[in-house]
Amino acid sequence: MTSAVDARARSNVTPPERMRAWVLHGPGELSFEEKPVPAPERAEVLVRVDAVAICATDLDVIWHGPPALIEGGAPFHKGFTPGHEYMGTVAALGPGVDEYQVGERVTVEIHAGCGQCKRCRQGMYTSCLNYGLNYGARDKGHRANGFTTDGGFAEYAVNNINTLARVPDEMSDEEATLVVTAGTAMYGLTELGGLVAGESVVVTGPGPIGLLGVAVAKALGAQPVILTGTRDNRLEIGRKLGADHTINVRREDPVERVMALTHGRGVDYVLECSAATDALNQAAHMVNRGGRICLAAFPHEPVMVDVAHIVRNNIYVFGIRGEGRSATHRAAALMQQRRFDATLIHTHTFAMADLPEALRYARERVDDAIKIVVKSDHHAATL
Amino acid sequence: MTSAVDARARSNVTPPERMRAWVLHGPGELSFEEKPVPAPERAEVLVRVDAVAICATDLDVIWHGPPALIEGGAPFHKGFTPGHEYMGTVAALGPGVDEYQVGERVTVEIHAGCGQCKRCRQGMYTSCLNYGLNYGARDKGHRANGFTTDGGFAEYAVNNINTLARVPDEMSDEEATLVVTAGTAMYGLTELGGLVAGESVVVTGPGPIGLLGVAVAKALGAQPVILTGTRDNRLEIGRKLGADHTINVRREDPVERVMALTHGRGVDYVLECSAATDALNQAAHMVNRGGRICLAAFPHEPVMVDVAHIVRNNIYVFGIRGEGRSATHRAAALMQQRRFDATLIHTHTFAMADLPEALRYARERVDDAIKIVVKSDHHAATL
Amino acid sequence: MTSAVDARARSNVTPPERMRAWVLHGPGELSFEEKPVPAPERAEVLVRVDAVAICATDLDVIWHGPPALIEGGAPFHKGFTPGHEYMGTVAALGPGVDEYQVGERVTVEIHAGCGQCKRCRQGMYTSCLNYGLNYGARDKGHRANGFTTDGGFAEYAVNNINTLARVPDEMSDEEATLVVTAGTAMYGLTELGGLVAGESVVVTGPGPIGLLGVAVAKALGAQPVILTGTRDNRLEIGRKLGADHTINVRREDPVERVMALTHGRGVDYVLECSAATDALNQAAHMVNRGGRICLAAFPHEPVMVDVAHIVRNNIYVFGIRGEGRSATHRAAALMQQRRFDATLIHTHTFAMADLPEALRYARERVDDAIKIVVKSDHHAATL
Amino acid sequence: MTSAVDARARSNVTPPERMRAWVLHGPGELSFEEKPVPAPERAEVLVRVDAVAICATDLDVIWHGPPALIEGGAPFHKGFTPGHEYMGTVAALGPGVDEYQVGERVTVEIHAGCGQCKRCRQGMYTSCLNYGLNYGARDKGHRANGFTTDGGFAEYAVNNINTLARVPDEMSDEEATLVVTAGTAMYGLTELGGLVAGESVVVTGPGPIGLLGVAVAKALGAQPVILTGTRDNRLEIGRKLGADHTINVRREDPVERVMALTHGRGVDYVLECSAATDALNQAAHMVNRGGRICLAAFPHEPVMVDVAHIVRNNIYVFGIRGEGRSATHRAAALMQQRRFDATLIHTHTFAMADLPEALRYARERVDDAIKIVVKSDHHAATL
Repeated sequence: MTSAVDARARSNVTPPERMRAWVLHGPGELSFEEKPVPAPERAEVLVRVDAVAICATDLDVIWHGPPALIEGGAPFHKGFTPGHEYMGTVAALGPGVDEYQVGERVTVEIHAGCGQCKRCRQGMYTSCLNYGLNYGARDKGHRANGFTTDGGFAEYAVNNINTLARVPDEMSDEEATLVVTAGTAMYGLTELGGLVAGESVVVTGPGPIGLLGVAVAKALGAQPVILTGTRDNRLEIGRKLGADHTINVRREDPVERVMALTHGRGVDYVLECSAATDALNQAAHMVNRGGRICLAAFPHEPVMVDVAHIVRNNIYVFGIRGEGRSATHRAAALMQQRRFDATLIHTHTFAMADLPEALRYARERVDDAIKIVVKSDHHAATL
Repeated sequence: MTSAVDARARSNVTPPERMRAWVLHGPGELSFEEKPVPAPERAEVLVRVDAVAICATDLDVIWHGPPALIEGGAPFHKGFTPGHEYMGTVAALGPGVDEYQVGERVTVEIHAGCGQCKRCRQGMYTSCLNYGLNYGARDKGHRANGFTTDGGFAEYAVNNINTLARVPDEMSDEEATLVVTAGTAMYGLTELGGLVAGESVVVTGPGPIGLLGVAVAKALGAQPVILTGTRDNRLEIGRKLGADHTINVRREDPVERVMALTHGRGVDYVLECSAATDALNQAAHMVNRGGRICLAAFPHEPVMVDVAHIVRNNIYVFGIRGEGRSATHRAAALMQQRRFDATLIHTHTFAMADLPEALRYARERVDDAIKIVVKSDHHAATL
Repeated sequence: MTSAVDARARSNVTPPERMRAWVLHGPGELSFEEKPVPAPERAEVLVRVDAVAICATDLDVIWHGPPALIEGGAPFHKGFTPGHEYMGTVAALGPGVDEYQVGERVTVEIHAGCGQCKRCRQGMYTSCLNYGLNYGARDKGHRANGFTTDGGFAEYAVNNINTLARVPDEMSDEEATLVVTAGTAMYGLTELGGLVAGESVVVTGPGPIGLLGVAVAKALGAQPVILTGTRDNRLEIGRKLGADHTINVRREDPVERVMALTHGRGVDYVLECSAATDALNQAAHMVNRGGRICLAAFPHEPVMVDVAHIVRNNIYVFGIRGEGRSATHRAAALMQQRRFDATLIHTHTFAMADLPEALRYARERVDDAIKIVVKSDHHAATL
Repeated sequence: MTSAVDARARSNVTPPERMRAWVLHGPGELSFEEKPVPAPERAEVLVRVDAVAICATDLDVIWHGPPALIEGGAPFHKGFTPGHEYMGTVAALGPGVDEYQVGERVTVEIHAGCGQCKRCRQGMYTSCLNYGLNYGARDKGHRANGFTTDGGFAEYAVNNINTLARVPDEMSDEEATLVVTAGTAMYGLTELGGLVAGESVVVTGPGPIGLLGVAVAKALGAQPVILTGTRDNRLEIGRKLGADHTINVRREDPVERVMALTHGRGVDYVLECSAATDALNQAAHMVNRGGRICLAAFPHEPVMVDVAHIVRNNIYVFGIRGEGRSATHRAAALMQQRRFDATLIHTHTFAMADLPEALRYARERVDDAIKIVVKSDHHAATL
């Protein structure tokens, strides 16, 4: 690997001054246009984007903006470039950076905390109290690329070195874009206690985070791992990723079935990824006394919750918005070690120029799309 | 103290075979009758009950039964004696017990786990998976005195030594009955992180747990400690117990006020003790990103919850049913050290024989009763 | 599996009243003699011992006694039966036990805490403050089978249900005896933080715990996992169990080599299993600032330690005497899932009647013995 | 307070370009000379130093240099200014800083992590893996003022905002210099578990950290708190700060006495602040099974340690070099709330110009000096 890096580093050329990037004008209005290549500052690198996966949150951002997170409101008409699940090649180093070399392949997590607030000081950088403050007089250096700072639907992006994980030679660009999704699932399991070998886990909802949640839980030794969902083909992918049992909630009552599978005891942990209206209540009835629930998805409207049941049963509920606590590094390690095949959730590939069509596939779930990856076409060029 | 113990121990007489105890027949039907004095088994002692405080949960138990916790349903017509916040004097020791001596004054926490289930093995004895299993073929030795096993509205009660805390000579019987309430508040703060010195805490609801939650938070160095409620006289007691600010939610919007008091940042922790319908939502808007909420109270019916807000802001929610993780010992230590005056919440005293009237005061909040203590009249007798 | 259990359960016969057991008279003086079959009490079962592995600590116990742990001193001339790494079949249930059925195959961990002391209440049952108190007036119910209570070099043994883990049908008796060794390694990694995927670990010393420490660390996703030792054949077994690098300390300076392998950064964790005189100092120079060391072995004499280096570098040192915090269950799950082949460390098998010869092999490391398993010969008999 | 700040802010003048500062030439060679006032960068402020306490580590730095921490070796002949326990007034803000205002009184902790390494990402900023890297090509922004970057024996110093704590109006300059010492003690107790109310603590060594360790442990509710030392006057100050018992190790065996005071059980925690040769061994014999020891001091030479005892008793040992995990904020809160009188350890005051004499007092413990504070004489001047 090092020789490959060296070779590429030797052929290093100064990145260009301008690039093609998708820019968000109004809600849903993206145009592929020229803008300046950004310059990495202290503790940052410039990444040449090689591939980007599309996340449901991208659709939210593009059509609605990330709610309530950006100073001054929604990101429209600000020249903003979305896209947060990308990987690429280090193209330039900010001042003082020696942790990475030009030419190394990297994948990214989303959040770089300010490093100065109480949460960052606790290691909770994804709960940074200066979220979104990257511009103007109150620039605190926070970055959430593709949310509040420019993201990966472009030829180049700037990343804080804290957000990088190395990609081994054997891992494809497409697979590398899935690391942050696995990292989000890993963060959920980390907050749930992390020592899950031999413990029982339900994952509710076979979307990308849920499916990789199954894979990560199984890789860590959880047993049984139970997956619930509404579509058999998704559940089947869950089985391939390690689910010991799957429950199609259209045909079976998931709480009853979980109780039967656990001899009436309930499970130790639920990783909720369905955003269903009754998901929290069902989770609370699936876990045993003192059990833990991680909410990695949520219904957009308030829902009825049986708070009494949560309190009477000493249940812990953790909300997570994305990755955190360096869980992406743990997930990357498991993927590098081939503990599971994340590419099972990669269903479609498009060229960067075809982003709108790729987004349509994601939005309308055309052809039962799970993860759609958009690839850059600059691969023939020098770095 | 030891000499006092020795003196009393020397005058030790065998406890009587029969005692007077309140027995629950139907819902709300208590009668003061004779029943056998129970015998302490391994790791248990017999406690001569000297004083008992009345808790809102006692009213639930007496009129409705502890919901869904007892094998075979509600505790009516089983000869059950309620009452869980009591203190007294060690009257006899089970086999092998040398941790306590006859004659020592003790106060109690409620739960003695089975010691064999997964939760007990984790130290989470109040989340014992064998909750309620104390009788018959499936006797696992779990005790929740006053809930699933006989409690303290009687002359004598049996307690696992795990549930005892010593009472110093300087502490009155009445104050000692409040230790478990302070212990519940302490458990909430423990689960919230425990290192609260210099951190900001809101306590919602100035009932007994909330008021002592203020006291414990302040004793541990939290600042500011903010108390919300609807009654000014309760809030005033909260101020005496250490609240830096109080908010009467009838006159002010508590979320707005908390935000103003914290310069728009929100607080680190909320200890919710109000059981109000919107309490969880308000708590979620009072804490900052990554903040923590402990639910020590709950509305009996399901309520609308803005789950999305909890997830988007990485908020942690802990439900606690009572005390736990030896927090009662921590609370007892602070009370022994006179860090706060728990007796400020003790408003009325009745004789044991007058329990029905004491319960009426508690139920109807006659004379703005907060904590009512029922005292035994055997004080003149030998142990 | 259940049918097999049922079949065996149907053929259940009352266990015999007397059995053959190895009894320790003086230091090193074992005789195979008759003694009564013990009776399981509350929360206990009777296990018919099918196989026992020999641990270095058995040699200590048999020749020196477990130091300073037993009331009244060394276990000689008390009719004591050693042996702690055993597995077998449930032969009878104590009163109230329904967690296991007669006929189920089980393996054991060593320690059953008293359930009443401060440490047990914290979930630290292997640090029970009533260690060794199982007999006489101060009987607190603590068991450390093979250390302070009768162990497994016998036909039958009594075990608290807390010490049991189920053995799947596919797992051989011999492999099942290794679960507690893997559980000790798992406890070390658990105390070190547990979330070791992608983190770097050095294991020093390729004895049984060290070798399974490599296996467990790798199964959890640690990378790199580095093993140090003095014998190439042991290191080679370490490679088969997952070591990414091995260092023969006779040929290379292990600190220098670890530094080279980690690009000068040092590792995150060291699991010390060598008992070498300079092991702690070397470990402290292998970990990075803020790193963690678990001592699972120790030199018998005091050694020179560079405490200043530990303090200056914010290093954490955890001593563990054996398994703990239910880690044995986590290890058992990984073994059931075939994450590593523990039988690679099983080198020799003897019949129970040949225990003295088996002990000689272990003591003198005849034929480079690693793990020696002693098997009972009652397999043809009914349970 | 705000009006006072505003008033001072209104009278704000640009800080001068040059200042008087003590500069370290050779070992022990300090000269008071002119050098440029440093400029605060992003996330930094300029502090006008009002008072500085002298720590034993200052003597090490001045006569020996901070060992092995600075790139390129000892800090001699580099224009370095020592001094790390200072407080002062915010004199200028770096770009983007709005967390503090010019004119606010602040005290400091020592370490500002790089924010980019693994440890900083975990919240362990005092274990920053880029310790000392503040200069030249590998500038990672780490600061340890008075160790690796310029400190407080000067008119002005630059501080990362992470290192600041506000000083209330009621707190004197002298007392405010003691916050970081209390913060170090608090960090030790935090790492020991933090929930120390009602738990037993031994503090060994009545130096500044030990004495404030007694105060913090007591403020958090520990009982008993036992202090050991060699000088009765120091132990007497310990009693005033909250020690329930003191042991003069010249007259009594501290292990025996601790065992007697704890009825043979030993204590839960030891905070070791003596640097005595046998301190770790004695601590290990003072704690109970599963107990915890924090080493906040260390002998400079390797010492004999009974590692076997540590392992056999599941003892945890934490080395800490200074403050950490925002413990300084917790300590500052307790001091603001007047939970203990830290000024009891302040014995002498000198003018900044008399630093050499102040250092002599500290070094030779003239007049039984504990904490010596050096004060600036610019107080009459405008900020």
